[in-house]
Amino acid sequence: REPVPDTAPRTSLEEFGFPLSGAETRQYINHALSYDQAKKTPRWVIEHLSKEKMLGKADRKHCKFKPDPNIPQIFNASNEDYLKSGWSRGHMAPAGDNKFSTEAMAQTFYLSNIVPQNYENNAGFWNRLEMYCRDLTNRFDDVWIVSGPLVLPQMNEDGKKRVTYQVIGMNDVSVPSHLYKVILAKRKSPAETLAVGAFVIPNVPIGFDHQLPEYQVRLQELEKMSGLAFFPEVKSAEGLKNLCEEDSCRLIQLDEFKLYIAGRRMKNARNMEKVEKIMSELKEAEIQPDQYLSSLYEEKKRELESAGASNQRERRIG
Amino acid sequence: REPVPDTAPRTSLEEFGFPLSGAETRQYINHALSYDQAKKTPRWVIEHLSKEKMLGKADRKHCKFKPDPNIPQIFNASNEDYLKSGWSRGHMAPAGDNKFSTEAMAQTFYLSNIVPQNYENNAGFWNRLEMYCRDLTNRFDDVWIVSGPLVLPQMNEDGKKRVTYQVIGMNDVSVPSHLYKVILAKRKSPAETLAVGAFVIPNVPIGFDHQLPEYQVRLQELEKMSGLAFFPEVKSAEGLKNLCEEDSCRLIQLDEFKLYIAGRRMKNARNMEKVEKIMSELKEAEIQPDQYLSSLYEEKKRELESAGASNQRERRIG
Ligand SMILES: [Mg+2]
Ligand SMILES: [Mg+2]
Repeated sequence: REPVPDTAPRTSLEEFGFPLSGAETRQYINHALSYDQAKKTPRWVIEHLSKEKMLGKADRKHCKFKPDPNIPQIFNASNEDYLKSGWSRGHMAPAGDNKFSTEAMAQTFYLSNIVPQNYENNAGFWNRLEMYCRDLTNRFDDVWIVSGPLVLPQMNEDGKKRVTYQVIGMNDVSVPSHLYKVILAKRKSPAETLAVGAFVIPNVPIGFDHQLPEYQVRLQELEKMSGLAFFPEVKSAEGLKNLCEEDSCRLIQLDEFKLYIAGRRMKNARNMEKVEKIMSELKEAEIQPDQYLSSLYEEKKRELESAGASNQRERRIG
Repeated sequence: REPVPDTAPRTSLEEFGFPLSGAETRQYINHALSYDQAKKTPRWVIEHLSKEKMLGKADRKHCKFKPDPNIPQIFNASNEDYLKSGWSRGHMAPAGDNKFSTEAMAQTFYLSNIVPQNYENNAGFWNRLEMYCRDLTNRFDDVWIVSGPLVLPQMNEDGKKRVTYQVIGMNDVSVPSHLYKVILAKRKSPAETLAVGAFVIPNVPIGFDHQLPEYQVRLQELEKMSGLAFFPEVKSAEGLKNLCEEDSCRLIQLDEFKLYIAGRRMKNARNMEKVEKIMSELKEAEIQPDQYLSSLYEEKKRELESAGASNQRERRIG
């Protein structure tokens, strides 16, 4: 039987309201999300990346993880849930995609944007994936990314499929077995191009011997697993390219990664001793500094020398 | 940092739409629900019970379980997922609450209203709970009930808490570890009374040695576990009574249950041999037929005798 027009006696089914699942879309400065009040994590987080947003001085040093003030208190995770749990606080919309705005970056530290993530995964493979996403803005005009947690079943020895996941802290925050990212990239010219890639990453350490295409899945497959329909307003499958064919899907390798980390340390270095140590460590690892690091090095040297000179002046005056 | 007014450059975050979780409220003739597209079960189902709706001739014999035509196909469960899975198809809004309308009853057989339920639980404890809910309409004017599945964590031997649940069939339909019911009952006079009870029932066989209050939890506790806020428009905790104090929360016992089953069999009996067998089985079990069953028996006897007479007439004529 198909549904029929409602001819039943009018009840007051809604007199005291329907249950609230809190799954509605919540919008922030540079991301939006749907929160999972049962799991105490986001269900999905969407962001838009462009070259301009990567520029700016917003710094995560000034950001603190904290419960999202927009989520009802009984459904919030807390920092205490994560501390000493063995799991890191993993951003879904990355802090680093919000350099243009201190406020936008601060909002990515709300726990509504965070899932329990394996430390090495967070600092390693997932980090490299986030870098690749940012790098896409050099080759595409607009990039949309949806990220979120998954709990996937496994076939057990008894022939039954089961989902198993840990929950942490007083609030039973769910630890995902996997994380997903759906990347939609648009180029306006010469011809308008739209490319999509869907990736499912196990929430475990993943080394530099692994590359992104290993984790690619068909978008519909991810939709079925996650219960979500992504980018519902993409008009047709026709003309929708595979991101890993249209672009490289190549994550940076170990040497490049070390150069990147050296660059970050260089920026924060407060004396020449630190600066030289960073350079000598690279030399030991037989990694040739690239142009970017070399110019960072020269800049830092000038900065620290002039600071030293002015310090000496101040001391002479004082 | 608290959220700040949106002063960021306008992005086109929503250009291709936000992900759709399908969690919106879906309304049927006599129930409404929110579907869980990841678990392929409802998240919650709400119904309104009254004395009038229990009356009527709608019969589940004419109903078939089927995928809900309103749910996108890739997120639907199928009958094949359940068959030979070891799990029954458990109604959240019970068929028996919809005797007033064949259409309303048929809609409770949509798989959007169904979860994988332990057979004995479904036919036993949960069945008794549903009878208790119907019986409440004799003492309250309106009864609202929210039912749904839960997957609850357990403390493991390694000191970690984990959620584990089976998934069945090609569509990986989630088997809940527990089921919940929230009952809200309203009496209009002499004084307006509103009473609530929240219950969490393990999805396992539960015998007649168990009673409902053993499974009662505080409403807020269930809200935290389920991620749902129930009856959000109940105005204040003041004056909201505990159902198990205001009413009995007493489920029928084994003898009453056997009488009830005997009554159902009696209604369907097609000859006097069946009818007498039902009566003799009760006698063997030393169960005294109550007034209801005795009158059913007399009625059935008359019905079968007159049918027999008219059959004989027809044979003579034919
Ligand atoms: Mg991270
Ligand atoms: Mg049932």
